[in-house]
Amino acid sequence: MLIVPLIERKRDGGALTPEEWSALVAEYTAGRVPDYQMSALLMAVLLRGLERQELAALTDAMLASGQRLSFDSWSTPRVDKHSTGGVGDKVSLVLAPLVAACGVAVPMMSGRGLGHTGGTLDKLEAIPGFRTNLSLAETRAQVMKAGCAMIGQTPEIAPADGRIYALRDVTGTVEAIPLIAASIMSKKLAEGLNALVLDVKRGSGAFLPRLEQSLELAQTMIALGEDRGCPTVALLTAMDRPLGRACGNALETEEAILALRGEGPEDLMEVTYALGVEMLLAAGVEKTSKKARQRLENAIGSGVAAEKFEQVIEAQGGNAHVVEDPSVLPQAKAVEVYNVPRTGVVHRVEPKTIGRAIVAMGGGRLTVEDAVDPTVGFVITVKPGDKVLAGEPIASVFAKDPDGITLGFEALSQAIVIGDRLREQPLPLISHRVSKGGIEELVRQTGRGKREK
Amino acid sequence: MLIVPLIERKRDGGALTPEEWSALVAEYTAGRVPDYQMSALLMAVLLRGLERQELAALTDAMLASGQRLSFDSWSTPRVDKHSTGGVGDKVSLVLAPLVAACGVAVPMMSGRGLGHTGGTLDKLEAIPGFRTNLSLAETRAQVMKAGCAMIGQTPEIAPADGRIYALRDVTGTVEAIPLIAASIMSKKLAEGLNALVLDVKRGSGAFLPRLEQSLELAQTMIALGEDRGCPTVALLTAMDRPLGRACGNALETEEAILALRGEGPEDLMEVTYALGVEMLLAAGVEKTSKKARQRLENAIGSGVAAEKFEQVIEAQGGNAHVVEDPSVLPQAKAVEVYNVPRTGVVHRVEPKTIGRAIVAMGGGRLTVEDAVDPTVGFVITVKPGDKVLAGEPIASVFAKDPDGITLGFEALSQAIVIGDRLREQPLPLISHRVSKGGIEELVRQTGRGKREK
Repeated sequence: MLIVPLIERKRDGGALTPEEWSALVAEYTAGRVPDYQMSALLMAVLLRGLERQELAALTDAMLASGQRLSFDSWSTPRVDKHSTGGVGDKVSLVLAPLVAACGVAVPMMSGRGLGHTGGTLDKLEAIPGFRTNLSLAETRAQVMKAGCAMIGQTPEIAPADGRIYALRDVTGTVEAIPLIAASIMSKKLAEGLNALVLDVKRGSGAFLPRLEQSLELAQTMIALGEDRGCPTVALLTAMDRPLGRACGNALETEEAILALRGEGPEDLMEVTYALGVEMLLAAGVEKTSKKARQRLENAIGSGVAAEKFEQVIEAQGGNAHVVEDPSVLPQAKAVEVYNVPRTGVVHRVEPKTIGRAIVAMGGGRLTVEDAVDPTVGFVITVKPGDKVLAGEPIASVFAKDPDGITLGFEALSQAIVIGDRLREQPLPLISHRVSKGGIEELVRQTGRGKREK
Repeated sequence: MLIVPLIERKRDGGALTPEEWSALVAEYTAGRVPDYQMSALLMAVLLRGLERQELAALTDAMLASGQRLSFDSWSTPRVDKHSTGGVGDKVSLVLAPLVAACGVAVPMMSGRGLGHTGGTLDKLEAIPGFRTNLSLAETRAQVMKAGCAMIGQTPEIAPADGRIYALRDVTGTVEAIPLIAASIMSKKLAEGLNALVLDVKRGSGAFLPRLEQSLELAQTMIALGEDRGCPTVALLTAMDRPLGRACGNALETEEAILALRGEGPEDLMEVTYALGVEMLLAAGVEKTSKKARQRLENAIGSGVAAEKFEQVIEAQGGNAHVVEDPSVLPQAKAVEVYNVPRTGVVHRVEPKTIGRAIVAMGGGRLTVEDAVDPTVGFVITVKPGDKVLAGEPIASVFAKDPDGITLGFEALSQAIVIGDRLREQPLPLISHRVSKGGIEELVRQTGRGKREK
């Protein structure tokens, strides 16, 4: 296969045919196209873009490089959620058992944290014994039995994506919307879903901070899903501050358990319910948003959602007692309270600063091989817009040693900006709903400027 | 050294510092930066460009990766010419001995043919025994003794350019004006020159066909040369048809010898004289174009230029008798005359078609390792604008076997387009002169529409 003419065509703004994309992905995955040609092509794609047909062909080729979950004639609807990632985003841990408790199967495949954002797998693995490396056969059996499985990307699914992602990571070609969309959708489309709901983060702590990027990514993924018979909708949610209070793996798992028991922070619950409503509607188990929301709230209020999480944990080898007693989770060796240094209004709680501090404290990873310490992190009880008094406790640092506490304090003093008056409004918690029909601006201001206690 | 942030910065339209370029080239040449990162960066450079400071730093870093010719206090001025390459472009073989015969030393370092364009080294090596792989020490000694040496790029000169060029060749990143300029100038600046003259080709057979690209490349190289104390000027010449009549290595060497003996085709002589005038003026051995041209014509008329070529051939181990008797050159096994199929006017003689046919017939190379058959090629005696009569002989095909003749005939029937009237004017043979002072439009129409006999 002659690769240079393909690179040149893309470089000059042209398009590759579906057959060329298909052959290219197959040859690259087989090791017959060298990395240095693929990386030049990926850079050209980043700067020139992909036409809709090309993107579809690339996604299909990555999907076709591996196996797919198949549920044959099983009638229970299957819906998954994907988030583009953020700081404090433990929604998946609440949402998967919650939606499963409402009669919709959730075969959820998640990733690990990388850079400043956390990953669902790391949070689940904070639970002693929890195993995320199920095979496709095990996943299928568990979804059909328990209605939910929460697993990592298996080597059977979209191996081409794995190779291409690893190359993008070291060649400055991660931030390409079509490549991000193809990577996500090639995995999600392998899950045998009836529908997919996307949580696309925006704001300074998001992977793609700008609104137009978030909208473009959402629309790109929706087009891919819809064209392949998987109805897809997206909500744009705020990541200009951490979601909820807890940031750090075990701390977030604890907060997710509290949420399933009805004690979650308001912003976390709002995002979880909004996504859950979309999932129930997409699955067809409820006809209106109001009824769907009611059903979700009932599943929490009745304890059924928490029980579903216990069932999933047990099925995947974890200590299910954690739902009753979160102190089963590993505990940080050092904990200290952070008091706000001055009186004023919280301007910002910068998620990137918090996320990077967790990595520096040993709770995240810079390369996929790094091990993480699940115990480290923060609990931050203020949000932008909150009034604070000098000396008031507004956060706790969880670390493995006094050096970690020092790092954590430094990060908090940088991340939490206090001023005299709120100069800039925080982003609406849930700002847009995107579907094949178009973009709907919601302008729901929930979670803004309200102190959570 | 962290490469990804550098790739990302260039990708997003930013600039690398001179220190970063310097370190990057050194680390890459030492094998400590992988090809897949360099190729992604090169693609970003191609699509985003380089700022003047960056280009200077890249060129300096490639220059610094190797050695330089040094002539110490030797007072003879040294000037070289570089052509961006074309079909039938045997100017170097005429110009180097011609200018040396006029008292200007020419340490000429040339390349091999690649793709549809020929290379000076391949033409020289058609002369039995001619050796182009002189060391830097041999080159220096020969230039100081004979006033001229014609060599290939030695491994001692700009090795970083060699590695980067090889990578560009297989990653679709050849056609980047700053990278082309840095590659050429890092080698030319190592020759210890007092001045440099560039022949930048334009038109369908040129490396960069469009006028604005040719002008940009010329101005980029001029800025690099001038900033490094090497006065540089460029002429833009036509490559929408082959230069001269002969295309193919031994055939072109023969035509160059005829030119040195005063029997060259008019267009070849015009380009050669124009470049020669620039070289004599730049060297300071003549003060006016008129006098310089006179001196060049005298050197041909008196036979001194041809003698200088004999001297160079002899010094480099070749059979100098070739200048007296070009039949010393290897001869094609099969030769056939091509008759024009219809009466009309020659619209086009497409150089790319001719160049590619030579490659297909075994006379060029697709990769740098390919061996070439010096005997194959064409002699084409018509130019765009010429009137022809059906059945009139207008070309000869030189091949190694009857299959080659067939290939040659097919190429001629495609390349030479005959119509009823000339629809499009051919490019002026020499259209622009570019110097640090700016662009001068010459609009000399020599060589256009005139039948050469």
